[in-house]
Amino acid sequence: MPFASRRAKVAAALSGHDLTALLVTRPVNVRYLTGLSSSNAAVLVTAEGEAVLATDSRYIGTARRECADVETVEARDVAGALTGRPEGAGRLAVEAHDMSVAEYHRLLADHPDLGAVSGVVEEVRTVKDEAEIEALRRACAITDAAFSRVVERIAPGVTEIEVARWLESAMVELGAEKPAFDSIVASGPNGAVPHHSPSGRAIESGDLVTMDFGARVDGYHADMTRTVAVGRPADWLRDLYELVRRAQRAGRHAVRPGASAHEVDAAARTVIEEAGHAEHFGHGLGHGVGLEIHEQPFLGPGKTGRIDDRVPLTVEPGVYLPGRGGVRIEDTLVARADGPELLTLTTKELLVI
Amino acid sequence: MPFASRRAKVAAALSGHDLTALLVTRPVNVRYLTGLSSSNAAVLVTAEGEAVLATDSRYIGTARRECADVETVEARDVAGALTGRPEGAGRLAVEAHDMSVAEYHRLLADHPDLGAVSGVVEEVRTVKDEAEIEALRRACAITDAAFSRVVERIAPGVTEIEVARWLESAMVELGAEKPAFDSIVASGPNGAVPHHSPSGRAIESGDLVTMDFGARVDGYHADMTRTVAVGRPADWLRDLYELVRRAQRAGRHAVRPGASAHEVDAAARTVIEEAGHAEHFGHGLGHGVGLEIHEQPFLGPGKTGRIDDRVPLTVEPGVYLPGRGGVRIEDTLVARADGPELLTLTTKELLVI
Repeated sequence: MPFASRRAKVAAALSGHDLTALLVTRPVNVRYLTGLSSSNAAVLVTAEGEAVLATDSRYIGTARRECADVETVEARDVAGALTGRPEGAGRLAVEAHDMSVAEYHRLLADHPDLGAVSGVVEEVRTVKDEAEIEALRRACAITDAAFSRVVERIAPGVTEIEVARWLESAMVELGAEKPAFDSIVASGPNGAVPHHSPSGRAIESGDLVTMDFGARVDGYHADMTRTVAVGRPADWLRDLYELVRRAQRAGRHAVRPGASAHEVDAAARTVIEEAGHAEHFGHGLGHGVGLEIHEQPFLGPGKTGRIDDRVPLTVEPGVYLPGRGGVRIEDTLVARADGPELLTLTTKELLVI
Repeated sequence: MPFASRRAKVAAALSGHDLTALLVTRPVNVRYLTGLSSSNAAVLVTAEGEAVLATDSRYIGTARRECADVETVEARDVAGALTGRPEGAGRLAVEAHDMSVAEYHRLLADHPDLGAVSGVVEEVRTVKDEAEIEALRRACAITDAAFSRVVERIAPGVTEIEVARWLESAMVELGAEKPAFDSIVASGPNGAVPHHSPSGRAIESGDLVTMDFGARVDGYHADMTRTVAVGRPADWLRDLYELVRRAQRAGRHAVRPGASAHEVDAAARTVIEEAGHAEHFGHGLGHGVGLEIHEQPFLGPGKTGRIDDRVPLTVEPGVYLPGRGGVRIEDTLVARADGPELLTLTTKELLVI
């Protein structure tokens, strides 16, 4: 059970914020610290490492069964129930980045000293334990398998929406809880829009098709992008593909414990800049993945902070030419002392279907 | 374009809160008022009915194209950009139930008079326009079609997880954007748990199987539950089914404009109470549906407020016998002056597979 050691890390972080306890209400953080997945639960963690979990009648049975190492309290008003506990006496704070203004003001009426602090649990969540990496590995394996199952069905006349549905059905059939996020399928000129929503556009011969998708397993999110050619692509599209492939490889190779978030970004971005496409790569290089699809650390030109050992990341450069098309290639990988561990294993050779 | 008339309703509501403008940040409310579906957007609505929409570079193109009747502003800090606008001068409030404490405190530094108010847009959203009801109708039709496609495949030996995956794949193949929520499939004794997560339990002959699922179309959520028998069910299970069916019918027939939320609940609950199962029906009778799967009005014993014309609702009584099993039957329907319009059309006769 990794939960006690995760709570111990949060407890250790509290003194740096001059707190004696933290009221964790963000569902993904409650899940991380107790294993309970619920839309209405909170956990109070003290600087001594004690924890009390509150949830309502719908989830209390599951909580008692699956979170046997913490005290549980049944309550509908989970935050109210825990702010009144003796464990919360002293300098207690809520999660400022999660709790709504309305909820905070309600609690302040009874607890005028209640503090608010941001990002304590998220910081702890950045470095993953091996059980988390194993869940990501399984999510990425399903993502790879869904790609190989669907890629052969792509042909001229098939619409973007159809490809997105095939990918999502395949992931669920292969054992995903659900897709990790709304899939992107962008063909031809739509490839120029990084966050394109799949449309009814029928794929044409000569198109590049960018697919950005992933599976969720045990709450952990895979994230992969591949761009394939349907029919023989024009030479300029081939060149664009090779450029992005080189940039992506440079970015992957820069991922190592100790590297700074902007250094890793620069490793890939420089390749694209030197080819004259600086203004056609308008987003950051990548982001952490875990219980959220986008989490710390974020890789980008202005980003501070360093990559630690056992931090899963995406590396996803793209070049987008407005009105013409685009290419993005993305892997999920894990920073390791002996070189990054690649979790998405689908080939990055240009597939011509 | 229904968006201008929706914004006019919000504008009209502001005077009741003594506000000259509202900064809407909740994504589902931004979508309702502008049509833009984005994870980072905000819209400022003034009491005069003017609107300014802010979103970042990823969505600004879509916003300019699809929300042509509002002024658009490109910004990463969408709330910050709009609180500084002249339209926001006067008594401006944010959405207190949505904005985080951290975000509000950040904005207060520059705007010490910034107010916070809850639920203004949600109140307006309760009564649907016909375009919204049409989206719900299509979502429910896909839900019905998925049920009829999957129900024939259910047999002894099939697991709950398999049934859930079949339902979700079928909905996506039939044109759903995605499942409206995580499907519930509960067989045999698991039927006693209202929010059971589908497990690896293999269905046995003689089981009842409860399926609670729905499709999402254009952002609108269908919600349906059916309980079927696999093989000949015991007489007590048949009796339980008939009881819930009678209760559900009584609940549906009580849905009419002007009825109070607790009256509709009581119409179904009385049937269950008179059969001696009062303590085995522990949740409310139903809830509104729309851009959220659970929204106003909520039907339950303590619930105040009245049902209006054109309010879509679920009616979903259940009886749950711990350790033994349970039955729930649920429809999505719309309150109408000439009697409720049923949107989920699957039979409520007990299907024996």
